[in-house]
Amino acid sequence: MTQNSAATSPVTLLGLGAMGTALARAWLAAGHPLTVWNRTPARAEALAAEGAKAADSAAAAVAASGLVVVCLLDDDSVGAALDGVDLTGKDLVNLTTTTPARARARAAWAEERGARYLDGGIMAVPPMIGVPEAGGYVFYSGSRELFELHRAALAVPVGTRYVGEDAGFAALHDVALLSAMYGMFAGVAHAFALIRREDIDPVAFAPLLVDWLAAMAQGAHGTAAQLRSGDYTENVVSNLAMQVAGTPTFLATAEQQGVSPELLQPYFALMRRRLEAGSGEEDLTGVVDLLLADR
Amino acid sequence: MTQNSAATSPVTLLGLGAMGTALARAWLAAGHPLTVWNRTPARAEALAAEGAKAADSAAAAVAASGLVVVCLLDDDSVGAALDGVDLTGKDLVNLTTTTPARARARAAWAEERGARYLDGGIMAVPPMIGVPEAGGYVFYSGSRELFELHRAALAVPVGTRYVGEDAGFAALHDVALLSAMYGMFAGVAHAFALIRREDIDPVAFAPLLVDWLAAMAQGAHGTAAQLRSGDYTENVVSNLAMQVAGTPTFLATAEQQGVSPELLQPYFALMRRRLEAGSGEEDLTGVVDLLLADR
Repeated sequence: MTQNSAATSPVTLLGLGAMGTALARAWLAAGHPLTVWNRTPARAEALAAEGAKAADSAAAAVAASGLVVVCLLDDDSVGAALDGVDLTGKDLVNLTTTTPARARARAAWAEERGARYLDGGIMAVPPMIGVPEAGGYVFYSGSRELFELHRAALAVPVGTRYVGEDAGFAALHDVALLSAMYGMFAGVAHAFALIRREDIDPVAFAPLLVDWLAAMAQGAHGTAAQLRSGDYTENVVSNLAMQVAGTPTFLATAEQQGVSPELLQPYFALMRRRLEAGSGEEDLTGVVDLLLADR
Repeated sequence: MTQNSAATSPVTLLGLGAMGTALARAWLAAGHPLTVWNRTPARAEALAAEGAKAADSAAAAVAASGLVVVCLLDDDSVGAALDGVDLTGKDLVNLTTTTPARARARAAWAEERGARYLDGGIMAVPPMIGVPEAGGYVFYSGSRELFELHRAALAVPVGTRYVGEDAGFAALHDVALLSAMYGMFAGVAHAFALIRREDIDPVAFAPLLVDWLAAMAQGAHGTAAQLRSGDYTENVVSNLAMQVAGTPTFLATAEQQGVSPELLQPYFALMRRRLEAGSGEEDLTGVVDLLLADR
């Protein structure tokens, strides 16, 4: 097999932060000819010692391969790095974290410059790159043709999940999952605060919390089914009225334990508002509608 | 084996809401002689047809068995139901949801009346009762002697986890896990709101969300280790400064999708406050300390 076969096609990578460096190492380890560029050159030089070709400029790096992967700090950095660079005929895969609207704008920008565009949202941290069993992956959206053509190369560092032609969908999936995670982290912080001053070992408590959250996360399947059907009363186990009735116990416990309720109150307030609107027999799903701005 | 052997010892149950009724059926199915009482008698009569003895009063029900399980609406209902009832020599197991402080007060109240006391916090919904593979369980705290003596009978409807002699610990564990769950639900609601107006099937999105949350819940082990050691910089993958730098993308995406940021902002605000206090190299664990009132 030659270096130019599909299995080890050349890759250019712009951006060598922790994530970019991890990606670079995975492609090098798999035998892909790799050209790298970084705004500050020291990191590219380090990778050159491991077999990468360090380009002197972003333009030179882009010229070196048909597949150009970008993993920079933010969308402004992408615009700055590629300003004036010839993208004609290139396949641009942008893994830089951004919003759906900016991903769509960047796709249009790339297409105007003669490139095919695929946007990516990385659901992994650098230590998970090159470690398939860690379960990380990248959401991709945009050109399906580009995705199918480079699927094997893209799958080398971390798993792939294509979520649609809309270039904004990868970022939207990425942000949605990360937002849900921060909600969960808020709940976890509140839980640890509740036990913090008691003679309870947090290390013994953590597995209870992890198992409980993993089990309760399954409830998202029911929420999804209700959102699709529009009937928020189907398959309800504990209805909104009962759950709102339980909230004073959670707030009183926080007060007893000296814990601020600020991370729980906004959700409880939306539960109450939905109940007051007459939805006591529903599940908690109506909160989703309350979050939408034209409610 | 006779009906009075340890394996099928008599049980009295006060309270026949959805949870109490599910517990009653599990004990009946296992052959335990069961005496039931409910404030409104219709539900007790229904269970009498299934083999339970329906008592005319709470006092009569309490007199019928050494083990008295209480599963009422709230702690006030417990006080009302047992007002003036002779508890001398009884083993009182209180599964009524309440706060740690009220559980401790109820334990003292029961002991003054000559009863041994065990408090329970139910981590299950009624359909999980009598279904071991559903993974539900009850946290118990208070008299270890009582717990060990009745462990087999208590384990009939749902799993058991003893968490200490402090009668408030079962309620504290219960509330802590449920509070964390509501935080997660808030994050899930935000995530679904983000995709609500897009051509994304929520039923296809849900498994991505469930798997991601289950994977990220594992982070609680690291949080616990940091809380125990007091060093919030140990084993940090993505530090507070990097994570705060990412929050504008989440807020901008919410704005683009017409979603109120009210469920995310309080946690992001605490992250920023901790960062501004000079903890940028830490993990997110410092938020726990910010929640404690005397901060």
